[in-house]
Amino acid sequence: MITYVFSDNKKPLYEQLTAFIKRDIEAGRFAADEKLPSKRSLAKNLGISVITVETAYQQLISEGYLYAQEKRGYFVTDIRSFLREENSDIHNTDIQIKFQHTELGKTNGNQSTSRIGSIVNVQETNPNQSDNPPAKKAEVRWDLSGNHVSPERFPFSVWTKLTRRVLAEDRTALLTPSPPTGIRPLRDAIAGHLGSFRGLLADPDQIVVGAGTEYLYGLILQLIGRDKVYCLENPGYKKAAEIYRMNGAKICFAGMDEQGILPDELLETGADVAHISPGHHFPTGITMPVRRRHEILQWASDGQKISPDTTTSFSEKKIEDSSVSSERYIIEDDFDSEFRLSGKPIPTMFSIDNNEKVIYINTFSKSLSPTIRVSYMVLPFHLAKLFREKLQFYSCTVPNLVQYTLAAFLSEGYFERHINRMRLFYAKKRSNVLLALTESGLAEKLTVQEEESGLHFTLRFHTEKDDRALQEEMAKKGIRMIPLSAYDHLNQNPATHTFILNYSEVAEETLPEAFSVLKELL
Amino acid sequence: MITYVFSDNKKPLYEQLTAFIKRDIEAGRFAADEKLPSKRSLAKNLGISVITVETAYQQLISEGYLYAQEKRGYFVTDIRSFLREENSDIHNTDIQIKFQHTELGKTNGNQSTSRIGSIVNVQETNPNQSDNPPAKKAEVRWDLSGNHVSPERFPFSVWTKLTRRVLAEDRTALLTPSPPTGIRPLRDAIAGHLGSFRGLLADPDQIVVGAGTEYLYGLILQLIGRDKVYCLENPGYKKAAEIYRMNGAKICFAGMDEQGILPDELLETGADVAHISPGHHFPTGITMPVRRRHEILQWASDGQKISPDTTTSFSEKKIEDSSVSSERYIIEDDFDSEFRLSGKPIPTMFSIDNNEKVIYINTFSKSLSPTIRVSYMVLPFHLAKLFREKLQFYSCTVPNLVQYTLAAFLSEGYFERHINRMRLFYAKKRSNVLLALTESGLAEKLTVQEEESGLHFTLRFHTEKDDRALQEEMAKKGIRMIPLSAYDHLNQNPATHTFILNYSEVAEETLPEAFSVLKELL
Repeated sequence: MITYVFSDNKKPLYEQLTAFIKRDIEAGRFAADEKLPSKRSLAKNLGISVITVETAYQQLISEGYLYAQEKRGYFVTDIRSFLREENSDIHNTDIQIKFQHTELGKTNGNQSTSRIGSIVNVQETNPNQSDNPPAKKAEVRWDLSGNHVSPERFPFSVWTKLTRRVLAEDRTALLTPSPPTGIRPLRDAIAGHLGSFRGLLADPDQIVVGAGTEYLYGLILQLIGRDKVYCLENPGYKKAAEIYRMNGAKICFAGMDEQGILPDELLETGADVAHISPGHHFPTGITMPVRRRHEILQWASDGQKISPDTTTSFSEKKIEDSSVSSERYIIEDDFDSEFRLSGKPIPTMFSIDNNEKVIYINTFSKSLSPTIRVSYMVLPFHLAKLFREKLQFYSCTVPNLVQYTLAAFLSEGYFERHINRMRLFYAKKRSNVLLALTESGLAEKLTVQEEESGLHFTLRFHTEKDDRALQEEMAKKGIRMIPLSAYDHLNQNPATHTFILNYSEVAEETLPEAFSVLKELL
Repeated sequence: MITYVFSDNKKPLYEQLTAFIKRDIEAGRFAADEKLPSKRSLAKNLGISVITVETAYQQLISEGYLYAQEKRGYFVTDIRSFLREENSDIHNTDIQIKFQHTELGKTNGNQSTSRIGSIVNVQETNPNQSDNPPAKKAEVRWDLSGNHVSPERFPFSVWTKLTRRVLAEDRTALLTPSPPTGIRPLRDAIAGHLGSFRGLLADPDQIVVGAGTEYLYGLILQLIGRDKVYCLENPGYKKAAEIYRMNGAKICFAGMDEQGILPDELLETGADVAHISPGHHFPTGITMPVRRRHEILQWASDGQKISPDTTTSFSEKKIEDSSVSSERYIIEDDFDSEFRLSGKPIPTMFSIDNNEKVIYINTFSKSLSPTIRVSYMVLPFHLAKLFREKLQFYSCTVPNLVQYTLAAFLSEGYFERHINRMRLFYAKKRSNVLLALTESGLAEKLTVQEEESGLHFTLRFHTEKDDRALQEEMAKKGIRMIPLSAYDHLNQNPATHTFILNYSEVAEETLPEAFSVLKELL
C-alpha cells in the first residue's frame, strides 16, 4: 500500500495527496494501467477521509493522470497518451473553479510537468490532436486577476466554533424552515451591521437574504418586473448583464466618466432601472461623488410617481400594484464597500434616497468568501411589502446552519473584527504593491489609477499596443492580467491601455520579478 | 437578574426561554413597560448565546409580549393592549415558518393564553378591532397537515461529526468556489446513490446541484426556455405553478385519473413540457404505472425531434440550439421516492427514456430536512451540454460546507442507513395510524386511499359536506387537515370529500382522541 507523509500544513490534504501521486506517476513508480488502491482502503491506510482521496483521484482524472473504470477502480494513465480539454476563455474572470489543463507532449511525457505553487505547467500542445489547436500557453506565474480567499484569510477558528455551537445548541431552530426573507436573527444582525458600519438604517423586515447576488438579481426581476428595461454601467460586470438576458429582461448600457454613470446617457437609454455600483465600481474603481448620486436619484424620482404617503410605519405603507410597473428604480450594488481603505465613506444612495427608489444589495462573498453563498438586499418599504405579497412563497435559499452561524458571527462582533483585520492586511498589501511598482521603475511607463476603496486598482500603460495583444504578451511571460476592454459590454474600445491589478491574493514577494518582466514588455 | 433553569432537553433553548418569560409576564412578575435585561447580559447570566436570547426576544415581540425601542432595549408590553396581525391563509400548507398569532382579549389578558405543545392558544378576537374580523380560531391540537422534521429524526450526531471534519480537514477546498453544477464529490455521491437506490444511471456531469427545487425550476426555465408552455398535474403542488407564473412562463393543467396525468388532456393542452410526479403524486398519492409512463414518454417523443446521434460519449454529443426550442420535455419530480414503503419500486421515467426527454429532479428536503436546502437535477446529455454553454456563468447556490458535508454523508453510507431507519420509523407509524383509524370505528365513515410510497395518504369521507365547510368544522375542534380541493389549480370541485393525512410528524398516542372527535363530525 502507498504511504505518504503529509507535512505541509498550508496546503489541503487532497492537494498534497494529488501532488504525491502525480510525482510518483511522473517518476514511473506506477506503471501505465496499474490499478490504484480503492478510495476506502487508501483513506484507511493514510488515516484521512474517503472524500479527500476521492477529491485527489478526481483531480488526477481531470488532469489526465488517472482514469476510472466503473466498478473496477482507478488506473494510471499511460502518460504518453493525453487528455485534451477545451481552451479556457481568457476573458472569463468571474469567480469559478479554474480547471487546470495539463497537456502532455507525446514524446517526453515523463518530464513534461513542473509545478510552481499550485499552478500546473502547461506545455505546448501537439497540433495534430485538434483541428483548432490552442495557442501556446505559458505557466501562470503571477495571477494579478485572481480573487480567491486563502485559508489564512478566512476566520476558520471562530467560524468552526460558532458552527459547532449552533449545531449543538438549537436543533429545533435548525430544522424549522426559515422565513422566505431569512431568519430574523440574521436580518437583525445585518441591519445592525449596516447601521453601525455603513450608516444605513434599515428595518430587518426590509432585508431579504439569499444564496448569492445572482439569485437576488433574479428575485428583483420577479419583484419589479422583467418587462422593465435594465441599464448597466459600461464598462462593467458582465455576469449581471448575462443574468438579466437569461431571465428575458431587456438591457441597455450607459457610459461613464470619472464620476461614474452618466445621467444624460442613462436618461437617453429610456431605461426603467439603473443597476450601478456607486461605492466602488468594477472594474474602473470609481467611487461616485455625492453630487452625481443626487443626479441619479433625481433621474429615478423623475419617473412616473407613485402617490407618496406620509405614513412611516412599515405595516401601514400602501402600494397599488399597477402604479409600480411604471416606476424607475436604482439597484445599488455595494459589493466590496467593507474594504474602503481610507477617506470618509460616502453615504449609500439608499440612505440619501427620500423616495423609496433604491434597492441596496451586498454580499459576504468579498468580505468572507464566495463559498459561503450569502448575499442580501434591502428593499424600500413598498417593495418589501410587495415582496411579501408576491414572492413570499419562495423558500429562503440559504441553509439554516449557515444563517445561524453568520448571525452569531455578525452579532457577536466577529465580523467587525474580521473586517478591520482584513482592511489592515489589504492596506499593507496595497502599499507594498505600490512600493514594488515604484521601485521597479515601471512607474514611468504607467499611471496608477488609485481609488480609495476596494481590492483592486487600474494601471494605465503608456503604450500603443492593443489591449488583447498586450494581454497575450503578458500571458506568454506568465503574467495574468485583464484589460479594461474585456469589461466593455459593447466592445467599442479595444485599446484602453488600462489593466486591472487585483492585489487581494497576490504574493507580494514575487512582484519585483513580475514588474521587471512587465517593464521589458512595455 | 432573571434566572431560569433549562431542564427540557427536547425543546430548543430559545423556546424554553420564550416560555419562561411569557409565563412571568402572564403571571405579572414583570410590570407593564418594565425593561428587560440586555440580550448580552441575560445571555451571560444564563450561560447561553446572545442569539438564543435574541431569538426568544424576537419571538416574544412577534407574539406581542415585548416591544423594542431603538438603542434603549426591550420592554414588557401592557398585555391588556394587544397586537393584531393578518389572518393566515388556511390553504397555505407550503413549508414556511408558521407565525403564531396571539390575540389577547382586552378584558382578561392575564389568563388568555395556554400552551399545548408549542402551539399558542388563539382566543376569539374582539370584533371591534377590525372591519374584517378573523373567524373564531381554535387551538390546533392535531396538525395532520404538518411536514416538519423533528430533531430526533435528523441525524445530528453524524452530521455534526462530518461538518467538524470538513471544517478541519480541507480548508482550501472549502474556499475554492464550487463548479456551477456542484462539487464533483457531491455529484459523484448523488450519482452513486441514484444508481444503487433508484436504479438510475447518471453521469455526474449530468447532475446539477442547487439550493432547493424552486431554484432548479428557475434554472430549467432558463435552460429550455420560458417561451414554452408548461403543463402541471391537476390537482397538484401550487408552488410549482406560482414559480412558473412569476418567471413569465405560460402554464396549463391536465387532469388525472387513478394512474396519473391523462395523456389525452396533456396532448390537448398543447404544452411543450409536462411537470409531473410519477413516483408519488402530491396530494393524491398516485404512483404512475409503467404503461402510463410509456404513454407520456411517447407524447414527449412525438414532439418535433432533434436529429438523434449515435455517439454515447458525453463530450461528443452535439445539439443545435434552434432545434431545442421546439422540443417536448418531461420534468420528473421525484420528491419523496426515498420513502416508498413497500412493493417493488417502479423505474424512474428518466431510466426508461431512450430519447433524452426527461429531466429528473429530487431533493434532500424530505429525506433530510428542507432547511439544508439542497436539491439536484439530472439532465439528459444534450441539456447538460446546453447547460454548460448557456448557464455555466451561474455560481452554485449551495455553500461548500454543506456540499462537502453532504458528499461525505452520502458516500460513506450514512444516507442509506438514515433512509432505512426512517423507512422503518414511518412504516411503523403508518401502521399505527391505520390501526388507530380502524379501532376508532371511523373506518365505516371513510375510505382510506392508501398508496405504497410517501409520507401521506388520503381519506375519502362518506359525507355530503362541502370540503371547506368540513375543514372549518375540523379546525374548530382543533384538527388541521387539508382537503384535496385546496390543491385544485382550477378550483373546479369544492366537494372532493377527500382529505390528506400527513402522518410524518404526528404524535401517534394523540390520534385516538383526534379520530373520535372526527367521528362525531361526520
